[in-house]
Amino acid sequence: MNERLLKLNALLESEGLDAAFITLPKLVYYFTGFYSEPHERLMALVCVKGEEPFLFVPVLDHEKASRTSSVSRIYSHRDEENPFEALKCHLQAGISRIGIQAEHMNVKRYHAFMEMTGASDAVDLEPHLTSMRVIKSDSEIAVMKRAIHCIEEVIRTTLPLIKPGITELDVVAEMEYRMKKLGADGPSFETMVLAGEKSGLPHGVPGQTVIREGELLLIDAGVFVDGYASDITRTFAVGQISDQLQQIYNAVLEANESMIRAGRPGVAIGSLDTAARNVIASKGYGDYFITRAGHGLGLEIHEYPSIYGGNPDLLRSGMVYTAEPGIYMSGLGGVRIEDNVLVTDDGVEVLTSFPKQLTIIG
Amino acid sequence: MNERLLKLNALLESEGLDAAFITLPKLVYYFTGFYSEPHERLMALVCVKGEEPFLFVPVLDHEKASRTSSVSRIYSHRDEENPFEALKCHLQAGISRIGIQAEHMNVKRYHAFMEMTGASDAVDLEPHLTSMRVIKSDSEIAVMKRAIHCIEEVIRTTLPLIKPGITELDVVAEMEYRMKKLGADGPSFETMVLAGEKSGLPHGVPGQTVIREGELLLIDAGVFVDGYASDITRTFAVGQISDQLQQIYNAVLEANESMIRAGRPGVAIGSLDTAARNVIASKGYGDYFITRAGHGLGLEIHEYPSIYGGNPDLLRSGMVYTAEPGIYMSGLGGVRIEDNVLVTDDGVEVLTSFPKQLTIIG
Repeated sequence: MNERLLKLNALLESEGLDAAFITLPKLVYYFTGFYSEPHERLMALVCVKGEEPFLFVPVLDHEKASRTSSVSRIYSHRDEENPFEALKCHLQAGISRIGIQAEHMNVKRYHAFMEMTGASDAVDLEPHLTSMRVIKSDSEIAVMKRAIHCIEEVIRTTLPLIKPGITELDVVAEMEYRMKKLGADGPSFETMVLAGEKSGLPHGVPGQTVIREGELLLIDAGVFVDGYASDITRTFAVGQISDQLQQIYNAVLEANESMIRAGRPGVAIGSLDTAARNVIASKGYGDYFITRAGHGLGLEIHEYPSIYGGNPDLLRSGMVYTAEPGIYMSGLGGVRIEDNVLVTDDGVEVLTSFPKQLTIIG
Repeated sequence: MNERLLKLNALLESEGLDAAFITLPKLVYYFTGFYSEPHERLMALVCVKGEEPFLFVPVLDHEKASRTSSVSRIYSHRDEENPFEALKCHLQAGISRIGIQAEHMNVKRYHAFMEMTGASDAVDLEPHLTSMRVIKSDSEIAVMKRAIHCIEEVIRTTLPLIKPGITELDVVAEMEYRMKKLGADGPSFETMVLAGEKSGLPHGVPGQTVIREGELLLIDAGVFVDGYASDITRTFAVGQISDQLQQIYNAVLEANESMIRAGRPGVAIGSLDTAARNVIASKGYGDYFITRAGHGLGLEIHEYPSIYGGNPDLLRSGMVYTAEPGIYMSGLGGVRIEDNVLVTDDGVEVLTSFPKQLTIIG
């Protein structure tokens, strides 16, 4: 058993569980090295007290699981079977307390797990899993650096192609083409390219909007590489932009830098948000910073911790998070500058290296 | 209120509910025309008995919801708020029975909804929502035809570029580039291009495997257009292939055609699977058809119904499903031929039109 599986097994003991079911595909990957997205099919890493952990997968994943998983006990079920009856055959009797991923498992499946195992009690493993995952190992950091390098290369090589007259979706297409060519697993979220007014929507969706001279262009993108995510935002000026837009840009850049300077082990996570928010408020744009300042990053694009003002949790060495303050002005446009930051023993290391000074493109 | 919202409201009455919460983003879109992926943030369409339905969204989606939703009551919450406390302010007291999407809502959120509303009972709305969604309207069919046309155009224009020596990921990149250029929302699932032996993995992941002469190349891909999915598979011969691979191809093609001929309103859905499976078994490949024969298609890539042998549910006019028998031989390769099929009043209409005779490429 690898170190992570040993920790999972130790959880059975410390939490008094008879069995634990890991059902989030990325967590199955974290523990076993096997990744698959089973859609609505049942897939679980199953740890029963006193037994070797085993994988329970749809039959179409059996071969891949055998090839890639560090777990050698693998059982599978066919589409025409009831997967819970199939799984039950591999479980011992007398299970009364199980561990589940309560933020991943849906209500219907929860009832099926309880009925199948006969358990009377289910414990949410998420807090334990989160505290394992949030501290990245050196090898995880190395993979994340590759994911960051990849998306930076994508943006760098796409910039020269961006001219007034092409659309947001043209830029998205060019970027995602490069992601694949550079060997990424794929985008880590829907690549966001927002032109002009649309940059003022923190959650906008790229479309046929044409990129025009004198406007902002916001690019928020990332890739998965070997399962790990990068997530970077840069905002560009298409030709010359107004003084007001430049002021907004400078305010966000200052907030981003202030937030990065505030990071070190032991500070409250909320203080990072506050550091960014204070700068933006001092410039008079406090009402337009309508999102949290960042989020944890790793196997998933949004992980613990959430970086918002009131978060009292403490920053710890080995955490990786995004620093992404922004100003969003409806009808005018918006600026976001987002870096990926690793907490070190005595401060932070900014993993992203793409330039942050206002760059004129087009 | 639009017709769909009226039906949802009628559910409150017929199921004796005080409130219903629609939380799957695609279903929020189905009912309101507003689409957003809120990630871990709380988003819901809320129907309270005797009230106009309202949307409850993260604040960063407020503007977009206002612009695109047919629902005009919109409330939002900020990242630093507890979203359940914020939502509670908009709910009346005395809620004792609520409707939820039990296959979408996670266990942790479920407990929060129960506590927030004070409800003692939660009913799974999924069966009702499924029976609404499974019958596609003419306008939905029109959108799905556009999604199908788009992916067929992507495959058609990519084929001439495929030569021995390039990798699976090269082909994926070319295809996804074209999807965006053609105005798709994006791929409807991870574009699958599998060369040689890897085509024998029903769930394989494209990588740096090089495409070689004399092998099979399997392409399974789809796009979302205005929220609706297409999903097509074709398997090609790269140059001349062995007699055995040709036999496998012909067996799958015959199974695909047999399955399509079996479709009409009123037949058991399982009989479609059986029609395909019988052909493949009769050719001696029964052990290598290790997946179900298809699945429903619409707002999601995998919807009700699941097409497996024992499914007793009846096919109905207006359903759209995939017909995708396959033969998967470990170490050798595999063939899948997948069409998208609409049930009409007296038979079926095959919505996909890409040629199915074995095509030699490269």
